[in-house]
Formats: sequence, structure tokens, C-alpha cells
Amino acid sequence: MSHHRPDVDVIVVGAGMAGLVCADRLRRRGVEVLLAEARDQVGGRTAGIEVDGETVDLGGQFIGPGQDRMYALAAELGVATFPTHTAGANVLETEAGRSRRFRGMVPKLGPLTLLDVARAQSRLDRLARTVDAEAPWRGPDAAALDGRTLQSWIDRTLKTRGGRRFLVLACRAIWACEPSELSLLHALFYVKAAGSLAAVTDVEGGAQQDRLDGGAYGLAARLAGRLGTAIRLNAPVQRIEQDDSGVVVTADDGTAWRAGHAVVAVPPPLAARITFRPPLPAARDNLLQRLPMGSVIKYVAGYPEPFWRQAGLSGTALSLRGPVAMTVDSSPRSGRRGVLIAFVTGTPARDLATRSPAERRATVLDALGRLFGPQAATPVSLVERNWNEETFARGAYAAVFPPGAWTQLGSALRAPVGRIHWAGAETSPRWYGYIDGAVRSGEAAADAVTRAIRTAPARGRPS
Amino acid sequence: MSHHRPDVDVIVVGAGMAGLVCADRLRRRGVEVLLAEARDQVGGRTAGIEVDGETVDLGGQFIGPGQDRMYALAAELGVATFPTHTAGANVLETEAGRSRRFRGMVPKLGPLTLLDVARAQSRLDRLARTVDAEAPWRGPDAAALDGRTLQSWIDRTLKTRGGRRFLVLACRAIWACEPSELSLLHALFYVKAAGSLAAVTDVEGGAQQDRLDGGAYGLAARLAGRLGTAIRLNAPVQRIEQDDSGVVVTADDGTAWRAGHAVVAVPPPLAARITFRPPLPAARDNLLQRLPMGSVIKYVAGYPEPFWRQAGLSGTALSLRGPVAMTVDSSPRSGRRGVLIAFVTGTPARDLATRSPAERRATVLDALGRLFGPQAATPVSLVERNWNEETFARGAYAAVFPPGAWTQLGSALRAPVGRIHWAGAETSPRWYGYIDGAVRSGEAAADAVTRAIRTAPARGRPS
Repeated sequence: MSHHRPDVDVIVVGAGMAGLVCADRLRRRGVEVLLAEARDQVGGRTAGIEVDGETVDLGGQFIGPGQDRMYALAAELGVATFPTHTAGANVLETEAGRSRRFRGMVPKLGPLTLLDVARAQSRLDRLARTVDAEAPWRGPDAAALDGRTLQSWIDRTLKTRGGRRFLVLACRAIWACEPSELSLLHALFYVKAAGSLAAVTDVEGGAQQDRLDGGAYGLAARLAGRLGTAIRLNAPVQRIEQDDSGVVVTADDGTAWRAGHAVVAVPPPLAARITFRPPLPAARDNLLQRLPMGSVIKYVAGYPEPFWRQAGLSGTALSLRGPVAMTVDSSPRSGRRGVLIAFVTGTPARDLATRSPAERRATVLDALGRLFGPQAATPVSLVERNWNEETFARGAYAAVFPPGAWTQLGSALRAPVGRIHWAGAETSPRWYGYIDGAVRSGEAAADAVTRAIRTAPARGRPS
Repeated sequence: MSHHRPDVDVIVVGAGMAGLVCADRLRRRGVEVLLAEARDQVGGRTAGIEVDGETVDLGGQFIGPGQDRMYALAAELGVATFPTHTAGANVLETEAGRSRRFRGMVPKLGPLTLLDVARAQSRLDRLARTVDAEAPWRGPDAAALDGRTLQSWIDRTLKTRGGRRFLVLACRAIWACEPSELSLLHALFYVKAAGSLAAVTDVEGGAQQDRLDGGAYGLAARLAGRLGTAIRLNAPVQRIEQDDSGVVVTADDGTAWRAGHAVVAVPPPLAARITFRPPLPAARDNLLQRLPMGSVIKYVAGYPEPFWRQAGLSGTALSLRGPVAMTVDSSPRSGRRGVLIAFVTGTPARDLATRSPAERRATVLDALGRLFGPQAATPVSLVERNWNEETFARGAYAAVFPPGAWTQLGSALRAPVGRIHWAGAETSPRWYGYIDGAVRSGEAAADAVTRAIRTAPARGRPS
């Protein structure tokens, strides 16, 4: 390895938002970069398709207050933001399949249930404030909070059956998994990393407040445009070797690139599948064994117009009956066409995935019809994206920490291993799991690598 | 792929006990087999080294009543079994570092604590009887039991601080992890798969009752001897492709073998790191994202003689102080030399691994000295095996299911994917995680593949 001159200074693995931002920042500092992407397009967990001339987001798409790096990036790239449509009443579907209208984020659940939920929300917020987002494994209660599931906490905290059901639905909507799969500490860390529970759940004033003109994927596409030939598509990285002099990154067709440093900017379960030589330290390897992705199928239903608005509905719906957990109005800014997005997550996503395409379609359209009336059941188009079946994502929105992982092995999440640095929405202590977290992680990795280059330049490179 | 004649009928990936037994059984039926092993020796999580002319087990080594397939295999291979040494008193070290002698499996913990522990053990046994080991995701309480950690159950069930501490120690000794990392349902399934809690914990009458002359690794070595050139060492499998006609298994140096079927007999986190084409179904992939290995460092301390026996001690010790959780007399059958094995597991294993070799040695010898007197602190030899650092194990004794995994995705654990079958100690509904479970899984996979060959022979092979 040491006898060859590197091809570039830094190889970034994964052209999701984290990798793109990292590569872009390095390049603008004069660092030579190569960005290897497994798929045939950039964007990672943001993804766009064209439907009737409009770009539709099949992945992450919202931004909100506090996500400063995303607003800054959008401004820098000349992408306008606009508010998510919220005017009108929201809908809650009961387990029995009855739809009730409500305003704001608190549905009509009956006074006892509402009190129960409000009390739980405020307790979760209070507990979250005790967590150190930079080091969730620290803190006097970390071990106890990491010793149980969110489900256990729900079972003990909520007094009403309706309240417990609502919290399960909230968990599915927020983390795309069941409360049994999630460490309580991780749920609290996630809330702290976002600022508050309202920041996580709200549209106005929260993480769903704004959208990007042309879709979130448009940001990725513009960054890719700037990076040009520095990007290698269809290049799944299989092996990363390092020694004192640098790294060699090998793609699955055998192509190998040499560099001084590498940044791995892929989700944890995919990072685990790269062969590292020498092998990763045990703590880092063991951590990667236990960070599974959430389970989500996202549906995008297109209509000639946003007909629900005329009916006084916002397009935001929650369903206790399922399998659709949540919908949001995702019509283009012009409002000349109607788009509803619907999320099926957690157990319902795993169940739905076992059915035939025709059954899945019928099930989802039936659910939309119950929420918004018969018109909703006959869209012009219905696009499905099952993120669990994407070979180079294998789930979404993000990795979820099971009990024990943060306190046992969390300190290995962000620490570089020699010349290998880590990025991705899961490595950000601010807005973990959000596009904004990915951007921050890419910036942080670029900064760390820049420092590493300046203190220990790759041998064999002209200086 | 389909235009080439296969090299063999079946390729088995991983030459641990499961893979060896599977390959051996297939061969004896006239099925042509190739067995690809990543390491430079067979045996997987059984491993042996020579110390002063005696084979010492660095991995799994015990067998006990109910492990019929292991006794049968030993008999078939001409390997004698002999009882683990138990005569004499056991030792319990308190948190304060005081050593107390006790008989049987119940240490002197004070009457209230003892009652508390006994009650918890009996509840665990009762709960375990409700679990269907073939399908732990079934059963009326499966979701509730899988929704919480063993830690949560301990916190609610045990009334005394001493009792809770003892259960944490028991968890570390049994599963090599913290109770926070384990689904309660998995703990119960594991007990059910072994028959009872006593079967798991006991030496006499339990899974630690007997040892194998020449070590458990000796069985693997004899099976390897029978398989001869069918085994390829130093061949980490990187990719498995399949189509209607067969499979192609590619090692990391590019060597590719064709066959009608493949059996993957490696631990779940390592199976996750193989590239499958087409990609695994989402449920199987998502399951593999969430089955981490336990954490264990095993020490083997050699002495001129088993001096503790003369002092009236059995060599079995439990320590609430740590970092050694448990010791067992592992002297050779002849008794002419003394060997103690010591296990550091869970958090203490992760902590100890961060220290220097000299510090680790001093810490472990100090712990042995406290348990068995100054002689124990000056062994002739001390061998360390940190299973978390083994590139092709990445932990031991076995994979542990976090909350949610069994009920969400457990049905994908054993189901073949086309021409790919699964084996390994984690796939056995009987003696999950034990060598006996590995043997059973190898036999079951051989049977399933034999049926598959008979109903759908690989095209292109002469028939």
C-alpha cells in the first residue's frame, strides 16, 4: 500500500446528503476527493421521481426551525423553501375506523386519554432534557433509561388504553419502528437532539414545517452537479484497508482507489457490511451489529387537485386503525395538483410487505378513502417506496438503538478509526436521523479530515 | 451462471460445528460437498490450543443431559466424555470482595435475598414453559414478553438489591451480555430451548456436567479429518449468488464455486456481511441487522496441580465484584495438572478490553487470587481469548435477541431463501447457542438440503 501514490486525498463512501456535503466542503478547501456511491444515483435516503412533471420525494423531505444547516444549504444552492400545507382540520381515525377532525397536533381522544397523553408528552420532554446529546451514555440515569424499552415506559406511564395506543402510533410515525424495539434512552436522546418533542412532532414550528422547492432530492442533485466527475456511481464499496500511509478503498468490481483518508457516510448496517483491514476495533464492530434501521413504506398518491382542502381538511391524518400511520399534504407549491404522502411503518410495514402488489395498493387506497373520502381512493397515480427492500438502505428513516447499545458501546459511534472517519444522519448529536443531521455530520467529518490532513499528511503525496 | 456445470452439489459456508456436521452428513449420503472456512482452522466457536501437552478449550467446551446429539457425535467419533470436577465447595465473592463458600448452585446470599432469587428463578421457569421454542413469536404473551428487557423484568420482579445484583451476574454468566440488551422473550426462549433454568445453570445435571476428552475442539478436528480436501481454509466467503439453476459462492480472493445449494453456517452478524444476489428478502435482512453477539473474554489459567481441590474447593466460583463473573475447574481428566477457566463478560469484558495486556493480566490474576488464594494469582500459564476481537466470530457465546426481534422478524430466522439454507447454533430451537444446538442445526440443514436436491436437482448436473 505504502509504495503507491494516492489517487486523491480523501475517499468518501456513500453519496447521501452526508457524503455529498462532506465531499463538497473538502473540495472547496482544495482537498482532492472521490465519492463512491453504490447506487445509480446520489441522494441516499432522499430520493426523487418525476410524476407528471413534478418532482416527488420518495424519502426525507421536510425541514423545520432549528435545522439551520439545511436552510443554509438550500439558500446556498438557490433552492427555495415553502411551508407545508396545514390550513384546515386534521383527521384522526379511531381503531374502529371512524374519522374525527381536530386542530393542532392533539387529536380528540376523550378527556381522560388526552390528559394521559399530555402528561406522558410532558414527562418525555422533561426526561429528554436530562440527556447529554453529545454523549448519551453519560449522565446519572443513563444505564436505567437504556435498560428498558420505550414500550416498558409506555406501559408504566400511560394509564389509559387509548393513551397507550396513541403513543404506539406516535412511535411508529416518529421512528418507523415498534416501541418494543427502541431503548427509552434512544427515544429521549432523539428528542433532545431535535430540541423538544414538539420540534419532532409538529408541522408548524416543528420538523415538518417547510418543504424544498423541487424536493429535498433536488439539493442532492445540485451538490452532485457541483462535484461532477468526482462521483463514481454504481460502485458499492466492499473493502477498506488502511495502514500508516493511507487507505485503499475497493469497490465490488475490484476497482481500487488510494487516498490519505476515508469517510464512511452510509447507514450503520451497511457500514457493518464493508470488510475493514485491519478489522475494526471490537467496540465499533459490536456497535455496528446492533443498530438496525426502522421499517417504512412511503406512498405518494397524486390527484388532479388537492380536493381535501376544499373540504376543510389539511391533509394531515393519523390512524389508530392503520396500516397507514400518518398522511401529510405534499402537493407541489403551485397547488395545481394534489399529492398526499402516506407512511406505513413498523409492524404494519412488515405485514403489508408480505402481500401482493395489488393487495398492498388496495389496502392503502382503502385507508386513504376512509381518511379523506372516496376521491382519495382513486388517485391518478400511486407510487410506493419500500425502504426495507432498497439494497443500499435496507430500512429508514434511520437506525434505531435497542436497549443497552448507547450505554455499552455508544462512545464508538463517532470516534474515527485511524484514517477512517464516520458520517451520516446517525452520527450527528443534533437532529439525529434527519437530513439536517446528515448535513451536519458531513460538515463535521470534512472538518475532522481537514485537521487530520494538516497534522499528518499522507506519505507519498507531493507536498 | 446457468451455463456452467456445478463444482459440487452443496457448498457449506463456515466450518464451525454446524457446518462440519452438515457437510459430513451430506457426504455420507453421497452428496458432493465443499466447505469454505474463513479462518485457518475449523471449529468456529470451539477452539483449542496445546498447553503443556494438553488440549485446552478456548471456546465452547461443556455438554450435559439432553444434549443427545453431542453425546452421540462424541461416541461416533470415539471421543470419551468425563464429568466436570465438582467435588468441594463453590465460592461466591461479594461486591465488597469477601469470598464465601457454598454448596450446590445456590450461594449464601442472606435469607431474604435467597428467597427473592428462588422466587425469581421459579417464575422464570414457569414463564419459559409458556414459550413455543419452535416459534417464539407465537403465543398469547409473545408481544408483551418481547416488548421488554430482562433488566425491566429483574427490576420489577426482584425485591432485594442483592437479588437484583445476583440476577445481573447470572445473566452475564449465561448470555455474556447485560440484562438491558436482552429481550425477556429471548431469555425465556433460551431456557425453554435448554429444557429448564437448572439445565442452563447447573454443572451436575445441567449443561456444564460433562467435558470431552481432548476438548470440544477435538470433535471438530476429527470431523475435519473425515472431510479432508472438501474443506477450503482461509476462504472468507464474500458473495453468494443464486438463480433458478444453482448458486455461485465467491471467496474474498475471487475464487468462485458453483453448486446446486448453499448452507450458510456462520453467526448472524457474519451472515449479514455476505453480499447476496439477489439481495435477501427484507425480513431476513432486517433480522440480520439486529442479532448481535454477546461479549466474552475467556481466560485459561494453568497450574502445576489443581491445588484448590486439596483446600476443599470445587473450582466453581461466582463473583459479584468482578470483573471475572465465573470460574470452573477445567483441569485435564488425568488431574495431573490444574486448569481454571475464568469468564469476563458483558460490560466488564468491554471495559477490560480497553486496558493494556499487562493490566488485563494483573486484573484477572488479582481476581483469581481473591477467589482461590495467592497460589491462583501465579499460574504457570495464562491464555486469553477475547472473542469480540476474533474477526470471524466478533463475539460469543451466541447472538442475543434484543426486544422486538423475535416477534417482528423471528419467522425469517430459519426459513431457506431459495437455494440458500441456514445453520448455526442460533438456528436451533433446541439448545439455542450451545454446541449441541449447532450440531442439531447442521443435521437439520443437511436434511433440508437433501430433500431439496431430491425434489429439484440442480440443472446441468449429470443425473
